[in-house]
Amino acid sequence: MKKINKVVLAFSGGLDTSVILKWLQDTYQCEVVTFTADIGQGEEVEPARAKAKQLGVKEIYIDDLREEFVRDFVFPMFRANTIYEGEYLLGTSIARPLIAKRQIEIAKETGADAVSHGATGKGNDQVRFELGYYALQPDIQVIAPWREWNLTSREKLLQYAEQHNIPVEMKKKTGSPYSMDANLLHISYEGRVLEDPAVEPEELMWRWSVSPEKAPDVPEYLDVEFRCGDVVALNGVELSPARVLEKLNTLGGKNGIGRLDLVENRYVGMKSRGCYETPGGSILLRAHRAMESITLDREVAHLKDDLMPRYAELIYNGYWWSPERRMLQVLIDASQERVNGWVRLKLYKGNITVVGRDSHTDSLFDPNIATFEDDAGAYNQRDAAGFIKLNALRLRIAAKRQR
Amino acid sequence: MKKINKVVLAFSGGLDTSVILKWLQDTYQCEVVTFTADIGQGEEVEPARAKAKQLGVKEIYIDDLREEFVRDFVFPMFRANTIYEGEYLLGTSIARPLIAKRQIEIAKETGADAVSHGATGKGNDQVRFELGYYALQPDIQVIAPWREWNLTSREKLLQYAEQHNIPVEMKKKTGSPYSMDANLLHISYEGRVLEDPAVEPEELMWRWSVSPEKAPDVPEYLDVEFRCGDVVALNGVELSPARVLEKLNTLGGKNGIGRLDLVENRYVGMKSRGCYETPGGSILLRAHRAMESITLDREVAHLKDDLMPRYAELIYNGYWWSPERRMLQVLIDASQERVNGWVRLKLYKGNITVVGRDSHTDSLFDPNIATFEDDAGAYNQRDAAGFIKLNALRLRIAAKRQR
Amino acid sequence: MKKINKVVLAFSGGLDTSVILKWLQDTYQCEVVTFTADIGQGEEVEPARAKAKQLGVKEIYIDDLREEFVRDFVFPMFRANTIYEGEYLLGTSIARPLIAKRQIEIAKETGADAVSHGATGKGNDQVRFELGYYALQPDIQVIAPWREWNLTSREKLLQYAEQHNIPVEMKKKTGSPYSMDANLLHISYEGRVLEDPAVEPEELMWRWSVSPEKAPDVPEYLDVEFRCGDVVALNGVELSPARVLEKLNTLGGKNGIGRLDLVENRYVGMKSRGCYETPGGSILLRAHRAMESITLDREVAHLKDDLMPRYAELIYNGYWWSPERRMLQVLIDASQERVNGWVRLKLYKGNITVVGRDSHTDSLFDPNIATFEDDAGAYNQRDAAGFIKLNALRLRIAAKRQR
Amino acid sequence: MKKINKVVLAFSGGLDTSVILKWLQDTYQCEVVTFTADIGQGEEVEPARAKAKQLGVKEIYIDDLREEFVRDFVFPMFRANTIYEGEYLLGTSIARPLIAKRQIEIAKETGADAVSHGATGKGNDQVRFELGYYALQPDIQVIAPWREWNLTSREKLLQYAEQHNIPVEMKKKTGSPYSMDANLLHISYEGRVLEDPAVEPEELMWRWSVSPEKAPDVPEYLDVEFRCGDVVALNGVELSPARVLEKLNTLGGKNGIGRLDLVENRYVGMKSRGCYETPGGSILLRAHRAMESITLDREVAHLKDDLMPRYAELIYNGYWWSPERRMLQVLIDASQERVNGWVRLKLYKGNITVVGRDSHTDSLFDPNIATFEDDAGAYNQRDAAGFIKLNALRLRIAAKRQR
Repeated sequence: MKKINKVVLAFSGGLDTSVILKWLQDTYQCEVVTFTADIGQGEEVEPARAKAKQLGVKEIYIDDLREEFVRDFVFPMFRANTIYEGEYLLGTSIARPLIAKRQIEIAKETGADAVSHGATGKGNDQVRFELGYYALQPDIQVIAPWREWNLTSREKLLQYAEQHNIPVEMKKKTGSPYSMDANLLHISYEGRVLEDPAVEPEELMWRWSVSPEKAPDVPEYLDVEFRCGDVVALNGVELSPARVLEKLNTLGGKNGIGRLDLVENRYVGMKSRGCYETPGGSILLRAHRAMESITLDREVAHLKDDLMPRYAELIYNGYWWSPERRMLQVLIDASQERVNGWVRLKLYKGNITVVGRDSHTDSLFDPNIATFEDDAGAYNQRDAAGFIKLNALRLRIAAKRQR
Repeated sequence: MKKINKVVLAFSGGLDTSVILKWLQDTYQCEVVTFTADIGQGEEVEPARAKAKQLGVKEIYIDDLREEFVRDFVFPMFRANTIYEGEYLLGTSIARPLIAKRQIEIAKETGADAVSHGATGKGNDQVRFELGYYALQPDIQVIAPWREWNLTSREKLLQYAEQHNIPVEMKKKTGSPYSMDANLLHISYEGRVLEDPAVEPEELMWRWSVSPEKAPDVPEYLDVEFRCGDVVALNGVELSPARVLEKLNTLGGKNGIGRLDLVENRYVGMKSRGCYETPGGSILLRAHRAMESITLDREVAHLKDDLMPRYAELIYNGYWWSPERRMLQVLIDASQERVNGWVRLKLYKGNITVVGRDSHTDSLFDPNIATFEDDAGAYNQRDAAGFIKLNALRLRIAAKRQR
Repeated sequence: MKKINKVVLAFSGGLDTSVILKWLQDTYQCEVVTFTADIGQGEEVEPARAKAKQLGVKEIYIDDLREEFVRDFVFPMFRANTIYEGEYLLGTSIARPLIAKRQIEIAKETGADAVSHGATGKGNDQVRFELGYYALQPDIQVIAPWREWNLTSREKLLQYAEQHNIPVEMKKKTGSPYSMDANLLHISYEGRVLEDPAVEPEELMWRWSVSPEKAPDVPEYLDVEFRCGDVVALNGVELSPARVLEKLNTLGGKNGIGRLDLVENRYVGMKSRGCYETPGGSILLRAHRAMESITLDREVAHLKDDLMPRYAELIYNGYWWSPERRMLQVLIDASQERVNGWVRLKLYKGNITVVGRDSHTDSLFDPNIATFEDDAGAYNQRDAAGFIKLNALRLRIAAKRQR
Repeated sequence: MKKINKVVLAFSGGLDTSVILKWLQDTYQCEVVTFTADIGQGEEVEPARAKAKQLGVKEIYIDDLREEFVRDFVFPMFRANTIYEGEYLLGTSIARPLIAKRQIEIAKETGADAVSHGATGKGNDQVRFELGYYALQPDIQVIAPWREWNLTSREKLLQYAEQHNIPVEMKKKTGSPYSMDANLLHISYEGRVLEDPAVEPEELMWRWSVSPEKAPDVPEYLDVEFRCGDVVALNGVELSPARVLEKLNTLGGKNGIGRLDLVENRYVGMKSRGCYETPGGSILLRAHRAMESITLDREVAHLKDDLMPRYAELIYNGYWWSPERRMLQVLIDASQERVNGWVRLKLYKGNITVVGRDSHTDSLFDPNIATFEDDAGAYNQRDAAGFIKLNALRLRIAAKRQR
């Protein structure tokens, strides 16, 4: 076993990471630094301080990372219209690189030689955490307790907690029916009954949004303003990045928007079924595409579309801090300089409908050319004959040879 | 002016193609063969026969191509989860190659040396028709009246019709407010007030679907069965391809599904605003992705996703009959051999929600491995350590060099 | 330690695999089946039989796989003009899947529950072997001695051999200066002085080719005939696939062709320096591209070029038996139907120069259109104006907006 | 016919553009401004001044653009290792955007409302010129005489020259056997006997390089130093971009390097046969790849390789000034920040062999990890087992289902 002096643990304050905290102290005989972040998961972070103290932790970090999360991670990702496997908005994937980065910063500040997280050995999150750690601090030691210990079930975990006087909330004892992850972008559900992809999830599971059936009977209109591809105002009110996403979450959740039920392919090789609520993100994606539709050049848009699945895969697989993701980001960001203007959306019972879009400064939509009416010479229809003739030339040459 | 003996005209029987028919006879002093196809546009095709006769046409072709359209064009396209520019389901694009193919067949049967269509010189359809013509019959003469004549407005068209005793329906005189195109896959609207992309279309415009607001208050469940990537049964009833799409259109339209309002980039270089109703296609796309999610290998799915935008662009731009589209189709079709099983959907006021999917023969979802519970050794969590370590190696080497 | 009954070892008869043979017997107390293949490495395979017998092996497989190797692996790969990282012709990579396949077949025939190979834990070959094993027989046990034992140096290996009475050839004792791999496609050199990429390899290292300096002073012309993208005849003489490659190797080696000195990126994450001789393959690649240049449609050729690096990476990384490689192969093979004709090459002191190419049946080169002379109307130069105008349209619209 | 006041003509001073000059004056009754650039074509540009004066031109521009050409066009292109269709180094393509840019600048300076060039209606150059014009000045008038006049043969051209007292050099009268284009990057040959791709070009055709047979019998070593992906010194001597390319041309030409004979696919739809000499560019490409091989991250290199054919196609097709080319350039340039170091090459009778490469500041080659000897724990071979196991997982799951 490797010798560890001090380890920075990503600590939620919940059962799992509390057990890990104790287990690290006992197993490695090392000091543990806890790090708890508010990334909009919707739970208080301060209680984590008391729990950490109770377990003898001397260095306790509690950070509000919500603005950084949206500004430097969520927004850059949405500039690419990122979707994994045609459906998934990468809500969990995009938070991990930020946690990893902050853990490494704290390790440097506190002189720790190791970091630790509570992700299991089956999922993508371990990869996302650890690729981040290694990319930012190549000699860091990584401890992934789920891959090392033999506490392979909830019962064993509870037993360990009891044996070591780790306080466990009542609700934890009965056990949550799902494995959940939340941040400002989304909340996810996995495990238990969801492990049969043939079965519909129960209505009770969903926490962030009402069902379309329960949503208001009257549509709600929303104006979204973009600057360089990022949302800067909603309904005319300028908002910070985190406030934008919070507001979109509220509007989306209220109108039954953003639920997803899918089977995805994990980087570690298996298929898994997940359910997601991404109310604000779903609105953001639709609005951004509409904004780009009148401000981006066609071939720039197509280049982005061609690269998007690759970019999404990089984020899903945990390569946020890789040089290839950074290269792609440079291209994506450069494309957004002119993505300025506004989009009008109609939200209604799960539907996000684009009903208008314009840009006073950067629209490439030219009604004089596009019109079905007389265009006064703006476009010469006869040009099309030559255009088609030359595009057809290779096809005709081949056809003449009976191909 | 080129010398034409006989021309096959894609003839709808409406004002535009009636004027074209007469104009061709007068301008080229040639015989005209009319070809009218039922591709599910929802209008009677037989009236076209009387109109053609009245205008002196001797060879009149009226074909029901609905099954061929869905089987050989729509279904192959949906195997790729095809979407153009993130939104558009290519409803117009996919019908043109079939029309072009049939026109060329008729030209060969009737000994015609030319073909003609009613598409304008500004749009994509002229390209789609003509690339098809040239690829299938390289020496064919193509007459595109809109690029040649000076009837540049509706008024001039009506005047021409009157002068030449072409019967015009009353409704045509007042003029349709939109330029529309319909087939079994979709109906589209362009022009007039839609030419301002900032303005929401009026509710009256939409013809195929009720609005989500007007849709039933009770969700409807639908079971979709796939064989080799194509839908073969709905709610347990085996249906032919065209019947599948008709049924999906009915279900979608009733439940407020499939409306789209977007700005797209035309192949000829300008942006245009279009509104679309694709009720059945929207359901089909969602269901197909869900079916693939448990039956396709991850990397095959990602390869398809990477190639999809290119494939979509080929179809949008009119290259259905090109060798590169055929190459891609070979790959796509090969991927669908195992896409067998069923998907359960919930349709409700514009929403298509996947609530279950399974395949008795071809599921790659392995609950024993995916489970959050004890997996009895199906997966060794310790393997993940090595997996991460080697994937991180290049990042660590770079980081050690301060990069 | 896992319980093994019988293991099929990829056995060359050399020092390493002889030690592995003995080590497997001792360590796992299991029966060992040896498998030795002639894939054109240029060494006798029969001596392996005696060595295996001497070490008590009862089931000994010695197969001549040269034709299968070229026909089913090398030729399909070259149809894609495959190069890894702009330089490497994948000589080692392409042989591993065949070895893996045959090992699994023998495991099934002999009722073995495990397979083993002599590749180290640092290289790509372990991955290529084992991905093949698992893809073809998912429950097979894999033993990779280099990852398990502690014989971490040549000295320890020789010591082990001596202790266990394993016969070692004299030359092995002194130690080869390089780690080498050979088959009909290439021979490779790694290790020792090559580990400093700043230093030029010594002339003595190269075994298959003379240096350009030593090659004949008179060029040699070669006619290569293709059918469906594969070479079927050289200088008018029909040859089997393996004979084609042998002949090309002879011609190339004699004329100083096919040496390569490069640094490549391994799948396991490090850079390594390798030197390669691929005389026949270098000729084949050049000839195939030339053949395609007049028989392939432009967009098919470009689609192949776009996908080639991905296809190359799959083979380099060991995914020959994956579904995504098979999908790509289907597309590639479909593109080759018309790649028929001949190419004339000039070989001279390291240079492969294409000096002529033609196809009586499938040339898409049309001199009447391409000519700089009067083309008698085969091509209407005025068409180009419209072609350019519409291709420029989006650029002009943007420029008008000062973009 | 459009009304033109003043036109800027790209004027070489040769027969073709002299006839064009006169033809423009006569046909459009407009003033002509001539623009002659030295981009390293190897001919004097000053004689063009006298010819222009003689034909009554008042505004004459003669510019030395060699440094700008290499610095802002050739070098950026080589950062991407750009090759079109696996062979062609884009020597002609890369010069056109610079000419177009300078012509538009001059049009603005002189108040001209039109530009003109001497490219025919069959080739790629017309597209490259005109896409540049339109992208940089959307309302410019473009006159392409070859698409307008009826001087469709050399004889008619000479006759026109004679009738209009245009001085014609003797050599022009006999007629050059090839259509040629030259600049610092290359010289090209097309037309005449080359129009039969089955026939080898005569040795006499080549102008810039000796044949490998005639090259020196002794190899020449060359050290190439890179900074941010561009060559900054040769054999230890710092040189400006144009000087670098000149020197490489001299070295390459002397050693029989850089000849190419190929059939390419033109953007306008036909195949054409061209022969090229690119001595310096061939060396540059090889050296740059070698430099990247030790300084670029694997995935960055692969991303570049995947995008290269698309980038090459953009340049070949004339889209240098398009936003999508600029986007790609941003990505490519960002990747080059660490491409610093040196490469040693051996030049010998047509061969460019890399014999060494190193970077004191940016090498990612780690001999401690790569070594075949004992690595003292730098790499844990056991990690590979987990790496392979998880990469194989999806293949094993599929195989268990007999897929």
